[in-house]
Amino acid sequence: MRTRIFITGGTFDKEYNELTGQLYFNDSHLPEMLDLGRNLVPVEIRTLMMVDSLEMNDDDRNLIAEHCRKSAEDKIIITHGTDTMAETARILAEKVSNKTIVITGAMIPYKFGSSDGLFNLGSALAFVQTLPPGVYVVMNGRYFNAGRVRKNKETGVFEEVEEG
Amino acid sequence: MRTRIFITGGTFDKEYNELTGQLYFNDSHLPEMLDLGRNLVPVEIRTLMMVDSLEMNDDDRNLIAEHCRKSAEDKIIITHGTDTMAETARILAEKVSNKTIVITGAMIPYKFGSSDGLFNLGSALAFVQTLPPGVYVVMNGRYFNAGRVRKNKETGVFEEVEEG
Amino acid sequence: MRTRIFITGGTFDKEYNELTGQLYFNDSHLPEMLDLGRNLVPVEIRTLMMVDSLEMNDDDRNLIAEHCRKSAEDKIIITHGTDTMAETARILAEKVSNKTIVITGAMIPYKFGSSDGLFNLGSALAFVQTLPPGVYVVMNGRYFNAGRVRKNKETGVFEEVEEG
Amino acid sequence: MRTRIFITGGTFDKEYNELTGQLYFNDSHLPEMLDLGRNLVPVEIRTLMMVDSLEMNDDDRNLIAEHCRKSAEDKIIITHGTDTMAETARILAEKVSNKTIVITGAMIPYKFGSSDGLFNLGSALAFVQTLPPGVYVVMNGRYFNAGRVRKNKETGVFEEVEEG
Repeated sequence: MRTRIFITGGTFDKEYNELTGQLYFNDSHLPEMLDLGRNLVPVEIRTLMMVDSLEMNDDDRNLIAEHCRKSAEDKIIITHGTDTMAETARILAEKVSNKTIVITGAMIPYKFGSSDGLFNLGSALAFVQTLPPGVYVVMNGRYFNAGRVRKNKETGVFEEVEEG
Repeated sequence: MRTRIFITGGTFDKEYNELTGQLYFNDSHLPEMLDLGRNLVPVEIRTLMMVDSLEMNDDDRNLIAEHCRKSAEDKIIITHGTDTMAETARILAEKVSNKTIVITGAMIPYKFGSSDGLFNLGSALAFVQTLPPGVYVVMNGRYFNAGRVRKNKETGVFEEVEEG
Repeated sequence: MRTRIFITGGTFDKEYNELTGQLYFNDSHLPEMLDLGRNLVPVEIRTLMMVDSLEMNDDDRNLIAEHCRKSAEDKIIITHGTDTMAETARILAEKVSNKTIVITGAMIPYKFGSSDGLFNLGSALAFVQTLPPGVYVVMNGRYFNAGRVRKNKETGVFEEVEEG
Repeated sequence: MRTRIFITGGTFDKEYNELTGQLYFNDSHLPEMLDLGRNLVPVEIRTLMMVDSLEMNDDDRNLIAEHCRKSAEDKIIITHGTDTMAETARILAEKVSNKTIVITGAMIPYKFGSSDGLFNLGSALAFVQTLPPGVYVVMNGRYFNAGRVRKNKETGVFEEVEEG
């Protein structure tokens, strides 16, 4: 059974534009990262959008939910900016059922050489194979249930919270 | 609950000696890799040996088994050379019970910049948190049960085999 | 005889702030880069400022010129943002004489793994040892005389121009 | 006027064979390194051999000398293993005249991520443009005249010696 990977952007896929000195999105690095990890879990990759997660709106989240519902695969990884990862998880948990959905990302762009992205991708692939249906945020080697996680803006790490 | 990590050597931790042009073992890179992955799973690391897995003998494997049995933690990751990973898994499965033991490694040394090590470490940490007690080899994004896995010497990838 | 290195900032020394997603200046990476290159040319490093070269003003350039004049060394390397490198070269050529001054920089930050910075530093160190007194911009493996160089904003490369 | 680059092997171009765990030669990384450095000095690259410099014999050195003599370009860079770089320099100095020949190499393979190769290539290109005709070894940011240099086997660095 294949695993579906949806790409939505985020720090993961940022690159450095040497003419403007700005960070920008080009193509996703997911295929390259899976090769580097010598991944042999069958995956099907599709880019849904390429945005900073701070710019992601309700329409974007509905689109992601729609793709998760329609996906033939019941194991889904979503790469996503870290800033609003917890919010997207909460919305997907309301709108999609009976699938294992893992949202992950990176604090440092993959192209910057010292990224956490490859580590996170490895753990996301492992968690999606083993966790029961539900929506999860996977960062820092841990998994968090949707609705019970937030990104600590001061430390940059993810932490568990009481369900609201 | 902490996860125990035992280091035994393998490609993971090889470095390049610029005076001799040979690969050799220096200190383990595990702590640096966990930092890079921004890991927050509590771990306790101990180096048991620093050997090529082709040079690992029965005494070495008995020592590893002994440490697994005595470990206070019931979740254990072992970093190991890939060549005899499957053999060590088989022996640990005979000698240790009621613990989740994940053996992982790398095809390319971490210090070489384009290593699969960080990906494998991420997936090992995720699998050790979620798989039931047993001994597993984790490579290529997948997990394999001890006794049912071999490294394909020609392709370098791990594959499932019928139990012997 | 020692070579003096003055650091002024520029892309060379930019880092990625993982909490804000912005590029910023922290400490200079020059000492680390010289170690990586196994440099044995005696150098004395001093940071004069840490700015984007687009934000560099006349006061900043006068300060750099002043330090070049007062420096005991007659071979000087200046790391600098690429956008106004040519302008600083022109001003230094007016204000400093009898010293070999090489201005260099990078299109990609050193911390991003695939930077041109190490290459440029290697060529800057070589040119400063061999070129006669004067002010030069060193990029793309080439050296250009002050007053006869500009950065092509569209291609990002440096090219020779007729003296104005 | 173009610069000629002859490739002869050495640590520069070593790669890691993940099936055997041995270092080996594949294609040269020179074109990739020149791109990374955004080099715009016109170069013409030719691979003469791919050997460890400890295995280089008189025939090999005669072949290199022959190519240097016949080359249309009078500026030549040779990438070479560091162990016998000084010996090749001495032989070329006897056999080739009226050309600026720079021999360089690396202590760490380029593919290993933290190589001195890019730094050395940058300085070799700069020295070959500025030094008078002669044969030079370029390492550690410095240039050494043929016949007056040796590699210190204990420290791995190049040092000047009295002419023999």
